[in-house]
Amino acid sequence: MQFGHFDDEAREYVIETPATPLPWINYLGNEDFFSLISNTGGGYSFYKDAKLRRITRYRYNGVPGDNGARNYYLSLMSGSGEDATPVATWSPTFLPVKTPLDSYECRHGIGYTTFHTDYQGIESTLTAFVPLHTAAEINHLSVRNNTGEAVTVDVTGCVEWCLWNAVDDASNFQRNLSTGEVEVEQTGTNTIVYHKTEFKERRNHYAFFSVNEPTVGFDTSRDEFLGQFNGWDSPQAIAEGRMRDSVAHGWYPIAAERVRLTLQPGEERMLVFMLGYIEVPDEQKWEDPNDPAKVGIINKQPAHELFARFNTSEKVLKALDELSASWDELLGRFQVSTGDGKLDRMVNIWNQYQCMVTFNLSRSTSYYESGMGRGMGFRDSNQDLLGFVHMIPGRARSRILDIAATQLPDGSAWHQYQPLTKKGNADIGGGFNDDPLWLVAGVFAYLNETGDDSILREPTQFDNQEGSEQPLLEHLRRSVHFTMTHRGPHGLPLIGRADWNDCLNLNCFSSTPGENFQTVENNDTGIAESVFIAGMFVLYGEQYAQILERFGEACGMAAADVQAEAAAVRAAIGEVREATLTAGWDGAWFRRAYDANGNPVGTNEDSEGKIYIEPQGMCVMAGIGTDDGKAAQALRSTKDLLTCRWGTAILAPAYSTYRIELGEISSYPRGYKENGGIFCHNNPWISIANAIIGNDDEAFNVYTRTCPAYVEQYSEVHRTEPYVYCQMVAGPEAPTPGEGKNSWLTGTAAWTFVDVSQHLLGVQPTFDGLRIEPHLPAQFTELHIEREWRGVRYVIDATRTGEASLAVDGKLVSGTTVPIAAPGTEEVHVSLNF
Amino acid sequence: MQFGHFDDEAREYVIETPATPLPWINYLGNEDFFSLISNTGGGYSFYKDAKLRRITRYRYNGVPGDNGARNYYLSLMSGSGEDATPVATWSPTFLPVKTPLDSYECRHGIGYTTFHTDYQGIESTLTAFVPLHTAAEINHLSVRNNTGEAVTVDVTGCVEWCLWNAVDDASNFQRNLSTGEVEVEQTGTNTIVYHKTEFKERRNHYAFFSVNEPTVGFDTSRDEFLGQFNGWDSPQAIAEGRMRDSVAHGWYPIAAERVRLTLQPGEERMLVFMLGYIEVPDEQKWEDPNDPAKVGIINKQPAHELFARFNTSEKVLKALDELSASWDELLGRFQVSTGDGKLDRMVNIWNQYQCMVTFNLSRSTSYYESGMGRGMGFRDSNQDLLGFVHMIPGRARSRILDIAATQLPDGSAWHQYQPLTKKGNADIGGGFNDDPLWLVAGVFAYLNETGDDSILREPTQFDNQEGSEQPLLEHLRRSVHFTMTHRGPHGLPLIGRADWNDCLNLNCFSSTPGENFQTVENNDTGIAESVFIAGMFVLYGEQYAQILERFGEACGMAAADVQAEAAAVRAAIGEVREATLTAGWDGAWFRRAYDANGNPVGTNEDSEGKIYIEPQGMCVMAGIGTDDGKAAQALRSTKDLLTCRWGTAILAPAYSTYRIELGEISSYPRGYKENGGIFCHNNPWISIANAIIGNDDEAFNVYTRTCPAYVEQYSEVHRTEPYVYCQMVAGPEAPTPGEGKNSWLTGTAAWTFVDVSQHLLGVQPTFDGLRIEPHLPAQFTELHIEREWRGVRYVIDATRTGEASLAVDGKLVSGTTVPIAAPGTEEVHVSLNF
Repeated sequence: MQFGHFDDEAREYVIETPATPLPWINYLGNEDFFSLISNTGGGYSFYKDAKLRRITRYRYNGVPGDNGARNYYLSLMSGSGEDATPVATWSPTFLPVKTPLDSYECRHGIGYTTFHTDYQGIESTLTAFVPLHTAAEINHLSVRNNTGEAVTVDVTGCVEWCLWNAVDDASNFQRNLSTGEVEVEQTGTNTIVYHKTEFKERRNHYAFFSVNEPTVGFDTSRDEFLGQFNGWDSPQAIAEGRMRDSVAHGWYPIAAERVRLTLQPGEERMLVFMLGYIEVPDEQKWEDPNDPAKVGIINKQPAHELFARFNTSEKVLKALDELSASWDELLGRFQVSTGDGKLDRMVNIWNQYQCMVTFNLSRSTSYYESGMGRGMGFRDSNQDLLGFVHMIPGRARSRILDIAATQLPDGSAWHQYQPLTKKGNADIGGGFNDDPLWLVAGVFAYLNETGDDSILREPTQFDNQEGSEQPLLEHLRRSVHFTMTHRGPHGLPLIGRADWNDCLNLNCFSSTPGENFQTVENNDTGIAESVFIAGMFVLYGEQYAQILERFGEACGMAAADVQAEAAAVRAAIGEVREATLTAGWDGAWFRRAYDANGNPVGTNEDSEGKIYIEPQGMCVMAGIGTDDGKAAQALRSTKDLLTCRWGTAILAPAYSTYRIELGEISSYPRGYKENGGIFCHNNPWISIANAIIGNDDEAFNVYTRTCPAYVEQYSEVHRTEPYVYCQMVAGPEAPTPGEGKNSWLTGTAAWTFVDVSQHLLGVQPTFDGLRIEPHLPAQFTELHIEREWRGVRYVIDATRTGEASLAVDGKLVSGTTVPIAAPGTEEVHVSLNF
Repeated sequence: MQFGHFDDEAREYVIETPATPLPWINYLGNEDFFSLISNTGGGYSFYKDAKLRRITRYRYNGVPGDNGARNYYLSLMSGSGEDATPVATWSPTFLPVKTPLDSYECRHGIGYTTFHTDYQGIESTLTAFVPLHTAAEINHLSVRNNTGEAVTVDVTGCVEWCLWNAVDDASNFQRNLSTGEVEVEQTGTNTIVYHKTEFKERRNHYAFFSVNEPTVGFDTSRDEFLGQFNGWDSPQAIAEGRMRDSVAHGWYPIAAERVRLTLQPGEERMLVFMLGYIEVPDEQKWEDPNDPAKVGIINKQPAHELFARFNTSEKVLKALDELSASWDELLGRFQVSTGDGKLDRMVNIWNQYQCMVTFNLSRSTSYYESGMGRGMGFRDSNQDLLGFVHMIPGRARSRILDIAATQLPDGSAWHQYQPLTKKGNADIGGGFNDDPLWLVAGVFAYLNETGDDSILREPTQFDNQEGSEQPLLEHLRRSVHFTMTHRGPHGLPLIGRADWNDCLNLNCFSSTPGENFQTVENNDTGIAESVFIAGMFVLYGEQYAQILERFGEACGMAAADVQAEAAAVRAAIGEVREATLTAGWDGAWFRRAYDANGNPVGTNEDSEGKIYIEPQGMCVMAGIGTDDGKAAQALRSTKDLLTCRWGTAILAPAYSTYRIELGEISSYPRGYKENGGIFCHNNPWISIANAIIGNDDEAFNVYTRTCPAYVEQYSEVHRTEPYVYCQMVAGPEAPTPGEGKNSWLTGTAAWTFVDVSQHLLGVQPTFDGLRIEPHLPAQFTELHIEREWRGVRYVIDATRTGEASLAVDGKLVSGTTVPIAAPGTEEVHVSLNF
């Protein structure tokens, strides 16, 4: 069952009912100002940091749910005079009012969302977006009278202010109920409500809400606007058709502004509401610091200037065009036409879009991540940029250097860092032994994408300590050597607190409720090893060796040193590969780990948790067992034992009891999250692994099982948005198999884009050129691919002929790699037979 | 305007409308299991710790507000068969349904709350309480049919489970939405829903919700029960009259149980709903750990046993009687009859009750304190016990020793400690230089109440370090010497991070938003001094000297050492007193402090913050300036410059700009909180001070201005509960003067009880006997007071004759002190002329 459909031409998902199984959301903003917006207008806005600079309130786990974000009320009035009362009231976003609409359509586009609704002959269109390079959300609302007679329609827009720090705002009431402050400015042409809580003391920023028409009333006190006992669905001021013109002193400040429109038959009016954020230098905070009568009156000039940029429909539509053009450019860097509409829309639009969102926001703020906690993950951010680096390589470069600067001197890493301070998070600490190798993965991808080896020479701090700067290449060396020097009894890498699977905690035995499973005092016996990190080391250690050989000398290394270092690393790789094929092999699949007692994890000897997905994917991606049948056997076992219609589960059978020696993984109910859920993140590893050993059909099947566009028709089961990946789908052992959770912010976006672009479609940037090796089922016979790479547009036509050949600009080339184009080239035409 | 009235006979406040200006609440439970309950049934329950063991969810700052705690739905049904549908639905607590009731009455009693309502001829009475020595809340609901014909009434009770840790529950959704687990047990006689999230792994406790009648349906999935878009006011299962029998897997687990009552005319039925909490030893967690079919099935036996104790109305009513008898005993220890009904009800009932609640819960959980943050305050808890020690001295003794054990070896103190671990809170740290002296105040009060000097010899740790034990007397010595040795340029005590006024931060210059004003890096120049601590030192230093003289030798000190130590302390007191009278005196009042630059704070030289309340109260209480007119002048200034109809403000004029050298105090909007609000806590100091210098009329006026019973008639302005104190009332410079905030958990309760009992009524326990010196206006002519003290009941009749005399059991005694009764005495009769 579907609740909408894709409009690929418009790059939109069109939601046909407010009653989606869960709120289906979109993200607005791409730089500093961000908003979440659901298909009923829910969500919130923040500036840079969702915890510290939350602009509007949102109630996670609210009852009723998803209320109170963008509250728009349309009221058909009994007349146009002062005593007019509402005859009917509804929301142009359905919520909060809940009046059943005559028609409803929500279009989530790339960086904007539009609601088209109709009620009793009044047609409305509300478009929400954050203009490029602007710290504001615009809500552009058109109201059209299709009734055939003149009507009066009151339009009230309302937002609720968050007192900036989202955590404090939701807990410190004994203080906060006394601190809220607003100003209201009424001019002949409009009303602006300013939120200036704490501006008096330590903040140099305020927010405002404005509309570009004169108002007939406002409210800034939530209690006055709502009245007692009412929700956002039925404010008393709306029910009575009369605003209170209230000025909030503490308690709960809001901004509500009401415009009265008198519409002739067929007449349409456009309103621009703006939610803006302003920062001012200390010396410009006040309207007039020398006038005692104006103590505390804020400097509104910057807000006036910001609003003036968008205070007409013409200006707003121009800004929307600019936003669209920007995305044309970004998405245009990788476009395909394959004959499979679902594949095309995911690659061309939604998967890339999600890659941008995950790159921007990491795991901080979604409808499941409250924006209150986690910083950027060392592991997460390195992986996120794998799917993003082709869009804006410059931002990937900055991110790599930020991440690397949080690495610790011994090569290990802080597991998380705070985006505002860019410092490591001491609460979580380090000791996640996969972390350092992901830095190699990120840098290798960046180098392949750009060829910009200057990054390797960038002086980069360790642990953000001034004076500790070393070239980035040295960071890679320490990453790889950390793994080389931290190996256990079987010669496999030590796991530390956890590897990629945060919940497999082999050195942390926790029995106290509330204790963090990862940061509890570490019972590290130096015994627990990870087969997964072994696979990573073979894969990324080799990438490091290649970086050395390609760029080491350009980074000032002697040729002999390059050779010696590469040889030493490859020797260690050989050892780890061998250990993986022996101690790491269970007979029909790769084991997952050895615990602190030296017992294997992920073995047929166990009654539960017999097989885990991660080592099957990573080891085969690393080429382990590809020459002796073990890779194929591991992937067969993966399919047989872990895979269902909804994807490949993380492990099976799920654990039915808590195993203190395994940690959090066994704490979840069976079939959910790390205890047997389908963790979408690692499904593309299995797809890639299958492509690598030539199982093209299964590679594609793995891809489609979790791919939103292919699951769209089961939305009543899957429940999350059919245009983006979610982190986890309930596994076959769960009571609710196929049910998705934690959509949007997941490393799945990046890894799936790597899978589909580089392995299934097979367009892989390398140091030597663009390799093109499609791995798709037989029904794919003609592929048209356009790929912007290192400033050159590669226009690729690939045809399935069964005979491999490659022609570049009409000239046959041996192999499957299109050489790097000569400087000055704008476009290269590639013909591939495969 | 009033919204209810006092019923002193029943010890109840009777609320006549659900539409009180704010939710008016009560506390249930006195030991380990606590609930908050509002006059519309809002609130939540927890076991011992409101953060770590939250049993039910509550949404602070919810919209609509105060919803979702105890959800009871009464539905008059169209018939009694399976297809019966609701004809009308309402809540016996008004919320959440909001149906206007034919009659409504909420009675907040001492440890219980009762709702009487009527709707369409159906009368209901719901009584909520926590039985003595029981980890459960009982909701006893009677339903009576007054319609004259047989009716079917469906009763549905519903609670929403919190996933134990209230902070995690409200933020970590990416995990929590997958962890919720319940069990449903249906027997022939009832249905029990068990909440067992995380029981599988690290918890040895679960909760349950049960009713003592067979049910016609249940729900444990909130989404199923509510349906899409609905709030607690209109669940779909209620609207349709049909439960879903849903079993929650993750998401939002609840417990909803529905009973169908068929009532003949005049028939009444009683239901017992129970919300219970169970802890089980590890080895008894499971129903049958050896049966593979029963993996994960919890041991329900303890829940069955708990419920069986209260599963009939008879058992419940008996438990209510026991609760009432327990409070008879507690409150009976201080009872007065003065001719002023407001005074009597505050002293006899509500002020003492609030003292118990503040002693139990410190500042952790109210409708303003979210129960997520603060631990117990060193300063707070010492003060709280001043008003509680006469009720259960043994609990006060334990508390003193707990607090003292968090003192640091140098005599300073952790500012807060965690009640579960009893360890100091390192996040807040120490350096609040008033803290140590409050320990002297607490111990002195305990010794006067009990005469139990064994407490002084209790080996007590410093900083909770094993091996650091010293007798409690040594802790007092270090407290006093800390102040003696930390004095500034004027010889006044150094203020440290702050003194009693947490917001006066003279050594912490903060300009970064979100930074804690108190814990920011301390710019301590060793210059900033507190006149308030000077007053404390004179008062509590002298108390310490008296403790020494009275008990020092019994604690093993040589007589000479006692003398020397007392002399040294008194010498320092003399110096500090002199410094207060010179550097601390501004000309017409006591200054507040000197800042880090050596400038006076609270001086007429300043344009704002000219006068502060705290030193006026504390210095006069300490006897400073009582012999030279300065005390009287300071109190005149206090009245003239700080006092309005609603009480005495903390300072005036309020600060209009942020002063970084003063800190948080200047961050609040003018007239609120520490920036010119009426901080009720320090108003009794002014009342006591006036009593001390003989201004009995003003002493009483100060008492009544903030006293809830006297403000009851202005409830539309004051807004908070008219039966308990709030922390702060908006001051005369605020836009909303008289508006109360932060009711219930405030040191005001204890200090006001000290004021009214020991100074206005004048019954003061001393080492030598019970001193009786009333300070009341002329209209008080006859006082009858009964006071339980050291196991003896003192029955006091005091008559205003203008001639002072005292007779004890008929014999004249000189002075105003009733000597300590001989051992074995049960009752002493006292006649006082004053």
